[in-house]
Amino acid sequence: MIADLKARADRLRELHHTGEMLVLPNVWDAASAKIVAEAGFPVVATASAAISAMLGYPDGEGAPWQEMFAAAGRVARAVSVPVTVDAEAGYGKEPRELVDRLLEIGAVGCNLEDTDHRAGGLVDVGVHAGPLAAIRAAAGDAGVPIVINARADTFLPGSGVPEQERVAEAVRRGRLYLGAGADCIYPIGVSHERGHRYPGRRSARAGQWQHQARRPGPGQAP
Amino acid sequence: MIADLKARADRLRELHHTGEMLVLPNVWDAASAKIVAEAGFPVVATASAAISAMLGYPDGEGAPWQEMFAAAGRVARAVSVPVTVDAEAGYGKEPRELVDRLLEIGAVGCNLEDTDHRAGGLVDVGVHAGPLAAIRAAAGDAGVPIVINARADTFLPGSGVPEQERVAEAVRRGRLYLGAGADCIYPIGVSHERGHRYPGRRSARAGQWQHQARRPGPGQAP
Repeated sequence: MIADLKARADRLRELHHTGEMLVLPNVWDAASAKIVAEAGFPVVATASAAISAMLGYPDGEGAPWQEMFAAAGRVARAVSVPVTVDAEAGYGKEPRELVDRLLEIGAVGCNLEDTDHRAGGLVDVGVHAGPLAAIRAAAGDAGVPIVINARADTFLPGSGVPEQERVAEAVRRGRLYLGAGADCIYPIGVSHERGHRYPGRRSARAGQWQHQARRPGPGQAP
Repeated sequence: MIADLKARADRLRELHHTGEMLVLPNVWDAASAKIVAEAGFPVVATASAAISAMLGYPDGEGAPWQEMFAAAGRVARAVSVPVTVDAEAGYGKEPRELVDRLLEIGAVGCNLEDTDHRAGGLVDVGVHAGPLAAIRAAAGDAGVPIVINARADTFLPGSGVPEQERVAEAVRRGRLYLGAGADCIYPIGVSHERGHRYPGRRSARAGQWQHQARRPGPGQAP
């Protein structure tokens, strides 16, 4: 079980370093997961917005975490490719429990966003980096190097970050999250159309298809 | 709660007697239920095939009943129109418990099929009529006259009923099911294209859009 999960986590990480853009189609149930896997995508990602809508709750931790994880578990059971789960802001769980819940449902990656769903705006960068480091450590203890995709939500309207500071704040947050143990940074809402110059190697139109920035290779500034 | 469910059950029954064909779009989650209700349909029906696929199980009672009812409950919570649930062959539940579970999730109607998912083929007509009568009685005791849509599965390939006997057997079953307390008979798989002459007042192409035969009015042969 753990060996299989570790293999999937390794595979998911490798897919981030092939030199090609990794596209993660987002799914919300077993049927959509099977469609994506059968279409040949090497990984399946869940979307909290879609799963929340499927379950009948508002996005942004509006659904009970048990229902969100149960839905993500159905996705993971349905396919043999690695599954990464949009774990929103972590549902207030302790890092070790979050890792246990992810592995329990067969997930080997997760998104974690720095939006503060209770107070609004973004959590302090240090408040987000702490759990990221703890999740990295807990995953190591569990023997499964889950792929952590840390969201820097500065481009979202509710972030409270002034327009002219969003790029710099995303870069600042991204650097700290990578330093804390995240594998990738996901500046949701960034787009070339809006004139953002994102410092990652690649970017794409964000929207229904999530944009994941790849971690820069050696010798490149993050 | 019971008064609200009774009102929904009454509404669902009335919709079968307006003189117009009642179309029941089939849904599988809260999002699809909302789309159907927002499109103006006065009722929402679940489909076991779709819910099973969404959950990642084969149809035909392949999913745990708890998961099927939980999914149907999410549908019922999502809309204010009456919801009728494809309860497959009843999951081996006692009639009273089946009624309790349906009302618990907010459903006011159900499909019950006479396919024998364990042994294959169809259950004996009497074996199906008994629970239908008991469900009718249990619903009456509960104060919610749920709408029972009894499926006569003679037209399904697995029924074991010879082609030339399917119509007569469906009629025989339908009469007994109506007598036992069913509100409607659903001869799934019947179609004009295949040359069946169904004795109901109306019929439609069966397939993705279920065909529901209406109970004949007074003075008409069922």
